Amino acid sequence: MMINITFPDGNIREYEAGTSAMDIAKSISEGLARNVLSAEVNGEVWDATRPIDNDANIKLFTWNDPAGKSTFWHSSAHLFAEALESLYPGTKFGIGPAIETGFYYDVDLGDRTLTPEDLPAIEQKMLELAREKNEFTRKSISKADAISYFKEKDDEYKLELIDGLEDGAITFYSQGGFTDLCRGPHIPTTSPIKAVKLTSLAGAYWRGDENRKQLTRIYGVTFPKQKELKEYLELVEEAKKRDHRKLGQELELFMFSQKVGSGLPMWLPKGTQIRERLQSYLREQQEKAGYQMVVTPHIGQKELYVTSGHYDKYGEDSFQPIKTPKEGEEFLLKPMNCPHHCEIFAHRPRSYKELPLRIGEFGTVYRYEQSGELHGLSRVRGFTQDDAHLFCTKEQVKGEFLSVLELTKQVLEKMGFESYTAQISLRDPEKPEKYIGSDENWDSAEQAIIEAVAEVDMETTTALGEAAFYGPKLDFMVRDALGRSWQLGTIQVDYNLPERFELEYIGADNKPHRPVMIHRAPFGSMERFMSILIEHTAGKFPLWLTPEQFVIIPVSDVFLPYCKELKEKLAVHDIRGFIDERNETIGRKIRDNEMQKIPFLLIIGENEVADNSIGVRVQGEGDKGSMQFDAFVEYFKNLL
Amino acid sequence: MMINITFPDGNIREYEAGTSAMDIAKSISEGLARNVLSAEVNGEVWDATRPIDNDANIKLFTWNDPAGKSTFWHSSAHLFAEALESLYPGTKFGIGPAIETGFYYDVDLGDRTLTPEDLPAIEQKMLELAREKNEFTRKSISKADAISYFKEKDDEYKLELIDGLEDGAITFYSQGGFTDLCRGPHIPTTSPIKAVKLTSLAGAYWRGDENRKQLTRIYGVTFPKQKELKEYLELVEEAKKRDHRKLGQELELFMFSQKVGSGLPMWLPKGTQIRERLQSYLREQQEKAGYQMVVTPHIGQKELYVTSGHYDKYGEDSFQPIKTPKEGEEFLLKPMNCPHHCEIFAHRPRSYKELPLRIGEFGTVYRYEQSGELHGLSRVRGFTQDDAHLFCTKEQVKGEFLSVLELTKQVLEKMGFESYTAQISLRDPEKPEKYIGSDENWDSAEQAIIEAVAEVDMETTTALGEAAFYGPKLDFMVRDALGRSWQLGTIQVDYNLPERFELEYIGADNKPHRPVMIHRAPFGSMERFMSILIEHTAGKFPLWLTPEQFVIIPVSDVFLPYCKELKEKLAVHDIRGFIDERNETIGRKIRDNEMQKIPFLLIIGENEVADNSIGVRVQGEGDKGSMQFDAFVEYFKNLL
Repeated sequence: MMINITFPDGNIREYEAGTSAMDIAKSISEGLARNVLSAEVNGEVWDATRPIDNDANIKLFTWNDPAGKSTFWHSSAHLFAEALESLYPGTKFGIGPAIETGFYYDVDLGDRTLTPEDLPAIEQKMLELAREKNEFTRKSISKADAISYFKEKDDEYKLELIDGLEDGAITFYSQGGFTDLCRGPHIPTTSPIKAVKLTSLAGAYWRGDENRKQLTRIYGVTFPKQKELKEYLELVEEAKKRDHRKLGQELELFMFSQKVGSGLPMWLPKGTQIRERLQSYLREQQEKAGYQMVVTPHIGQKELYVTSGHYDKYGEDSFQPIKTPKEGEEFLLKPMNCPHHCEIFAHRPRSYKELPLRIGEFGTVYRYEQSGELHGLSRVRGFTQDDAHLFCTKEQVKGEFLSVLELTKQVLEKMGFESYTAQISLRDPEKPEKYIGSDENWDSAEQAIIEAVAEVDMETTTALGEAAFYGPKLDFMVRDALGRSWQLGTIQVDYNLPERFELEYIGADNKPHRPVMIHRAPFGSMERFMSILIEHTAGKFPLWLTPEQFVIIPVSDVFLPYCKELKEKLAVHDIRGFIDERNETIGRKIRDNEMQKIPFLLIIGENEVADNSIGVRVQGEGDKGSMQFDAFVEYFKNLL
Repeated sequence: MMINITFPDGNIREYEAGTSAMDIAKSISEGLARNVLSAEVNGEVWDATRPIDNDANIKLFTWNDPAGKSTFWHSSAHLFAEALESLYPGTKFGIGPAIETGFYYDVDLGDRTLTPEDLPAIEQKMLELAREKNEFTRKSISKADAISYFKEKDDEYKLELIDGLEDGAITFYSQGGFTDLCRGPHIPTTSPIKAVKLTSLAGAYWRGDENRKQLTRIYGVTFPKQKELKEYLELVEEAKKRDHRKLGQELELFMFSQKVGSGLPMWLPKGTQIRERLQSYLREQQEKAGYQMVVTPHIGQKELYVTSGHYDKYGEDSFQPIKTPKEGEEFLLKPMNCPHHCEIFAHRPRSYKELPLRIGEFGTVYRYEQSGELHGLSRVRGFTQDDAHLFCTKEQVKGEFLSVLELTKQVLEKMGFESYTAQISLRDPEKPEKYIGSDENWDSAEQAIIEAVAEVDMETTTALGEAAFYGPKLDFMVRDALGRSWQLGTIQVDYNLPERFELEYIGADNKPHRPVMIHRAPFGSMERFMSILIEHTAGKFPLWLTPEQFVIIPVSDVFLPYCKELKEKLAVHDIRGFIDERNETIGRKIRDNEMQKIPFLLIIGENEVADNSIGVRVQGEGDKGSMQFDAFVEYFKNLL
């Protein structure tokens, strides 16, 4: 019997029933066959070797596909288990999934304890077993047989997992001497696993329940090439160095306090300077673009959020209402600025002549997050949005959207992000119940975004089902210096909130009309943007943005008057910095200020005073020799 | 028998027992005797005519003393009651006290209703009775006799009041044909009451209880001279025009929304511009003075305020704790910024070399107020303090206090307040239980303030018992254009919070020491300051501060290109404004923009375009004729 196989590009080819993804790959090229790791068959990820009996849509996955990597790492978890069982017989196994990068396995080693020193031997064993090129084989098994297998191994964890499964839907996977309860899929053989690193050890409660036994969790990552592992480990090392939580502390940019509360950052003076410069820059751009700034409170009556719909949507999982001494009077911390801005729009009659009305605010909002999900400045409970709401006519939506796109691009480029893409997030057409607002409004909003984006030179992707509950949106993704992608600014069209707040303007026809609202935030939030900027720049901020542009280091206190004069002269040119007057050695002062990423270290000694010059060191680059004042100012200004 | 009378300046004179304050005044001068209204005798305010039988400290009160005015107005309330009884026999009287300005009386007119049209006749009657120069006479009366008197008059209100009094402590006051239950004191005769105005009518529940009868409350004010009444009424009229709530709406500076909540102002674009300019100015001054800005969240864990003591002090009457989905995790809206700033001080070890450490923040805080006490921007539930906390050594307190005094004076003068005084608020030595912190610390803090103030050229008063619960303070009182006094900025020394937060720095002796904290806010809050600034300037803000410095009014659309060019040219000189392109007449445009208090109205017509000039009108002053561009810029800059 022949079956029809449909490829992602729409091509259809005939194959014999029982063919596998691997067979299909071979029919295309030997090179592809060597690289295929798994395949999507009618929407489900399968072993590349599993027979296909009926017509199917197929997608082949290699190392370049996230799904291919995931299969590779899941199989690596099995390889790890095989190695562990051979080195530590009697080990019992919990679960061992692939994760975003690599895999982990939770194991019960009985009385034994694993230490980091034990890991290299396990890595070696894994590589040794991988070289055996054992096939991963899939086997359907009855529940009774599955139970009997793991009873024999005395593995209560697997037995508990099997207990929760239905007879008829249970599969085992084996490779070499190891068999595991597993739904799969797996790569064809262990052979492509060429590089192994077990990265860390941790404790993990069985099934995440702190009343149950704590197992040992071993994290690992594997690659098809040694070079890739090396690059990965270097990236991890570099990312650690750039971790904004670490740099935030070292450079004294921000802090957290247990007493104030988790997820509530406090901006220290240097961080505040950067924050204010970012805001000033954006404020200026927005003023040019016709925005008007407002200031609104951080709370609103519960009724405000009942009107906006936020209360019904987020009520239970949020910060709870703030009661007052007066019965029935309740406030909520604002999770968004839009309801306040709607009230500003609504406070007096509006004419079409006022539209588009662009209301901006650096508005601090509060959203409850589980403490386990908090992370430095990137996932917090209180953050300041560089928010604005554009109230406009339906006809103006596309134009306003376009001008926001241009503004956002300009801002990202000014901040030194050269590589970015945009994701257009539309409704999931199959789950209309997830969204509020009419179909007609959704269609119109989605169309406006798609058309506006088409006019801009920018890489975009489209994601169905990723829209906000109140409207479609566009998110900017920036790529940082380490090649990592981060979601930043957002632009969202909203036909819903004007409806709920019954907003109106009087049109040229002298009749009331409903405006459309666009929510937008180029940075997203000051906190999140700062976290990305720190990691992107490794704390070496653009010269215009950095808190201190220079430090003057006198070789001896004798030269202090010259230093003070120099500082004043630089201030006249709007070049800011300070004198390191500490009672420390020159070497120490240079080291400390290099660590603090001060861009220019100006060393003043006998020679400089004698010929009225400046000894210039550039952070991370070293000595640039002696310069006259004017030459330095010019050199500096050229770098801005 | 002779008694010793001690005067406020310490002088002691002998008088015969039974002499009165009036007799004493006569012994000094006839002029003084004519003006004396009442007197303080051993700390209690008495009738000037009441006999003094023993040694006493005495202070004579005239119209120039608040206590003199108060007596005058209390007597005026009796005069009003006398007039009302004669015009409306059978009227029953509730209470009739003096208030800040004038008096009121709550009366029961039976079936009659009083309207504003009835008031002039009552005023006339009061003046007529005053001219009789009737003496106010005081009489002690037994409770039984008091009851029998008011039973006869069938006045259940007075009877209820008498019911609550102790026999032996009841006095009646009479003048002319009218007698009232009253503790006094009163002025000698009705004769000085020369000008009368009954200002308004209102309903008032008997004893403020809404379940009891509603009486009619008549407000009035009286003066010794007709001219003073006239001036007062003009002032009231002018104050109404300047009411910041009215101007705030007309000039679109701020708004309130019922849905957002009472007492939660939202700053509209023009108000926000002023607010940001005020903050920029202060930020700049503070940077020069070595302040470092921070940003902290608007909530903190309950524990933070337990540590600070705020929770125990304000818990019940405040916004209540914000619960979260996690059991036991509770936050509070911050009522003050100091606890957050203490945590910033404490986040790493501090050296004496870092002190004084001046941490500033435009920090928005929230404090619950009863809705009846809210008033525009001057009494709100959420406000932004121009806050800073200076952490210093004990030895630095006086110096830091002094520099804050200087900064505040400079700020007030820049804002156009030329007249201000300072009130030093110290502990009430008789109520130590009201305050937290040791006596030694209080003494030291009070001493530092007194010494610092002595070095500054500024009018000061000292008020015992007005200190904050955590320390002594100094408040700036400014006098506005209408001569009214407002409390603005504050400086407070605090030895207490560093103790509660266990703050430490390492001294030159290498040992830990506790710093002292100074809280200060020159504006007090942006909201309150704005309310005062609006009323002080009547919305005509200083030129540097005003949102729009000019409006260009084209006589016809033909001149628009010239107008646009003019606007650009002015922008180059940092002169900001807009073109009124509305389709309205010139007259209307001038009127509207005058109303909006735009300082310069630049009229552009044929002549101006022909000779390349500007037709200049100054708001409130009218046409200034034609000017060349450079001349206008120079004229403008000279006004900054």
